[in-house]
Amino acid sequence: MQITPPALERLIQSLSQLPGIGRKSATRLALYLLRQPASEARNLAEDLAGLHRAIHLCRHCFTFSESDPCAICADPGRNRRLVCVVEEPGDQMLIEKTGAFGGLYHILHGVLSPMDGIGPEELKVRELLARVQNGVVDEVLIATSSTVPGEATAAYLAGELERLGVTASRLACGIPMGMDLKYTDEYTLAQAIRARQSMRRQG
Amino acid sequence: MQITPPALERLIQSLSQLPGIGRKSATRLALYLLRQPASEARNLAEDLAGLHRAIHLCRHCFTFSESDPCAICADPGRNRRLVCVVEEPGDQMLIEKTGAFGGLYHILHGVLSPMDGIGPEELKVRELLARVQNGVVDEVLIATSSTVPGEATAAYLAGELERLGVTASRLACGIPMGMDLKYTDEYTLAQAIRARQSMRRQG
Ligand SMILES: [Zn+2]
Ligand SMILES: [Zn+2]
Repeated sequence: MQITPPALERLIQSLSQLPGIGRKSATRLALYLLRQPASEARNLAEDLAGLHRAIHLCRHCFTFSESDPCAICADPGRNRRLVCVVEEPGDQMLIEKTGAFGGLYHILHGVLSPMDGIGPEELKVRELLARVQNGVVDEVLIATSSTVPGEATAAYLAGELERLGVTASRLACGIPMGMDLKYTDEYTLAQAIRARQSMRRQG
Repeated sequence: MQITPPALERLIQSLSQLPGIGRKSATRLALYLLRQPASEARNLAEDLAGLHRAIHLCRHCFTFSESDPCAICADPGRNRRLVCVVEEPGDQMLIEKTGAFGGLYHILHGVLSPMDGIGPEELKVRELLARVQNGVVDEVLIATSSTVPGEATAAYLAGELERLGVTASRLACGIPMGMDLKYTDEYTLAQAIRARQSMRRQG
């Protein structure tokens, strides 16, 4: 007998669609919320409903921000000659937390993945190249993950940037090969930023 | 530099308060929702906002239900002489899924925990005893977890029920001692229901 009330079942279904949350966790979360005062679920609902209304992409770096330009792009204390390219806003948060980077950012919103139909046009690549073309940027630190698509994206961007006469650098070895940036600890990441290496071909 | 936009930070904070979701998972979930169309976050928000509005406690068994009485209490095909006592609605869902139980339920909404100030008055204990006092119930199957507080609650209820002349039974051995009911597989649980044992003292 199906005894889950429809309103509860709907919430369980919605929660199950979130990454890393299976039906069992979704059920546990929904029942937890039911046991809490209604205000807790309502507050969470308001935070969710207001999310996309409040947050937009910064016109310069394409990070999630309530202001446009974002706080970092608007900060006169940041080094505007150095731009760090990351896959996602979450990667930018990780790098900011290390305190080891003083430049600006550029969020790609993904990595190249020809198998999934994701080419440069699906990412913020054109916007990156336009940004460095005005001559203000000296160096682009490509901080994509050291996964296969992350490395392929880095190699592609390095080629394009070299053609524009801009130095492309890469996070130093220190990040275990094949590991997603998200699982890197702060200290390793800070070390990798300090020891970043030029991608200019040797010889 | 704190770069998380306030609306994003609020959602991360709210999600972090859910059980089993740390700051890292909360950030991952919030960023995932930001990347999805706004409709996905809005749908989840609606499910959450409507949750407590739609769902109430059944007046008989105190399960979460949109109707009162709930579908099980209203079902004439259920054995009204047998009542299964569980800690939480989630436990009831697990037992229903086994298909091994044809009686009614009674949800305690917790276990006795004197250290946390949770006595019989904080649970639906008085309501259970009132329910069996009208003479319709022959047997109460106490399906609290085989944890220390679950066993203590079962022992307390068995004593009270015996005084009212009602048979108290317990899920059969088969559930590993000290394991929460939530982690029990369906088959073990079905077996434990079929082999349930009377708690009447031997001698
Ligand atoms: Zn920006
Ligand atoms: Zn009921």
